[in-house]
Amino acid sequence: MKRLTLIGIGTGDPDHLTLAGRAALQSAECVLIPRKGAEKDDLAELRREIMRKAAAETPVIEFDLPVRDATLPYREGVELWHDAIARVWQEAWPPKAADVAMLVWGDPSLYDSTLRIAARLAPRPDTRVIPGITALQALTAAFAMPLNEINAPVLITTGRRLRDEGWPPGVDRLAVMLDGECSFQALDPADVTIWWGAYLGLPNQLLRHGSLAEVGPGIVTLRQSARAEHGWIMDTYILDRSNRR
Amino acid sequence: MKRLTLIGIGTGDPDHLTLAGRAALQSAECVLIPRKGAEKDDLAELRREIMRKAAAETPVIEFDLPVRDATLPYREGVELWHDAIARVWQEAWPPKAADVAMLVWGDPSLYDSTLRIAARLAPRPDTRVIPGITALQALTAAFAMPLNEINAPVLITTGRRLRDEGWPPGVDRLAVMLDGECSFQALDPADVTIWWGAYLGLPNQLLRHGSLAEVGPGIVTLRQSARAEHGWIMDTYILDRSNRR
Repeated sequence: MKRLTLIGIGTGDPDHLTLAGRAALQSAECVLIPRKGAEKDDLAELRREIMRKAAAETPVIEFDLPVRDATLPYREGVELWHDAIARVWQEAWPPKAADVAMLVWGDPSLYDSTLRIAARLAPRPDTRVIPGITALQALTAAFAMPLNEINAPVLITTGRRLRDEGWPPGVDRLAVMLDGECSFQALDPADVTIWWGAYLGLPNQLLRHGSLAEVGPGIVTLRQSARAEHGWIMDTYILDRSNRR
Repeated sequence: MKRLTLIGIGTGDPDHLTLAGRAALQSAECVLIPRKGAEKDDLAELRREIMRKAAAETPVIEFDLPVRDATLPYREGVELWHDAIARVWQEAWPPKAADVAMLVWGDPSLYDSTLRIAARLAPRPDTRVIPGITALQALTAAFAMPLNEINAPVLITTGRRLRDEGWPPGVDRLAVMLDGECSFQALDPADVTIWWGAYLGLPNQLLRHGSLAEVGPGIVTLRQSARAEHGWIMDTYILDRSNRR
């Protein structure tokens, strides 16, 4: 049975890599690395730096990712896109390689499709996961803050959910991921605090913190200009309204 | 200004340590390590192994943790306990050391009190966080599963909350931490799936997965016997009821 090892590489700092991740990169027969559209240069360079520092001897095979059909309904478009990616993986996988690794941004368990794509491979390889630092952890580390209040819950959710459904019931602290549209703008900002970060772990990391009413509009503007400057952006944020009531 | 670096060390596998964590351990003037009650032997040995492998040259100072007064109301007991721990840190901190590190189980941001205790130090040191692999990540990695369904939220909560309030509104997937009492027993198990793990990342890791009605009682029994055998246990689990309705 062939083996696929998915290695969480953290969010931009090559030193986010764990000792287990480095060992898995070193022992793999080869590493498959996607080339992604706009973020191509910065992120491809990060992956190359990780390989250079951690496992310079392991061969790297690069492949182009297909593009998601944004004209389809979201869920259907994602399913077809994952099917297409699985076919590309299958083509890129060297026929004789029994032990292949892939670098996964953040952690393969958190809002990442790699595990779902791996489940589409036929024959299905034995899939092993090496956890990595997520954008949420890089965000809380940058602010030296806890994710949760004492004994309090935290809801991890998506920008799409926040736009469509507003502040979810029963919870005062949210961590928002996959938000390309600053969806916090859909909320009543009264008594809401935000901790926002982009390019977390990278040298050009951006951080903003304060009351959502005060810093929210500036984040929207900053996000637009940073995205224009770099050609891509990844950001995440925590919202808290435990002072409301 | 003195500096305190809190280093997330993951949950049992010394190779959970990140390259950034290792560098911080190597550059610190000394590392403060608590001795904890029942879990003392296994976890102290893990910390010693991390130091031996990652930073054998860095001096280690061990100190005894005070015990939380369980007769007080929970929140009040925790606050007084954190005050007491801060005093012990202050006594253990070598007067001339400007750059001290501490090893934090998991990640300092997730249900961990180290940041709150550090905020009590006077004068307050510059506090830096190096993120580490959490028990939740070790759990999802062990099952090679995503934490979330596509575009769906996940609520991270505590055993105490689950016991006191039942299944929270508006969310079908929960990650439960700090649960010393198998609080899933308080739920209607119909159509609930559980992924449970204990001693995650350690050689004696335990995993159970299935419908809560079927595997729940066995987890309660297994947890009791494992705890009796080792003298301590740390476990965490994910619950899903997206198939209900």
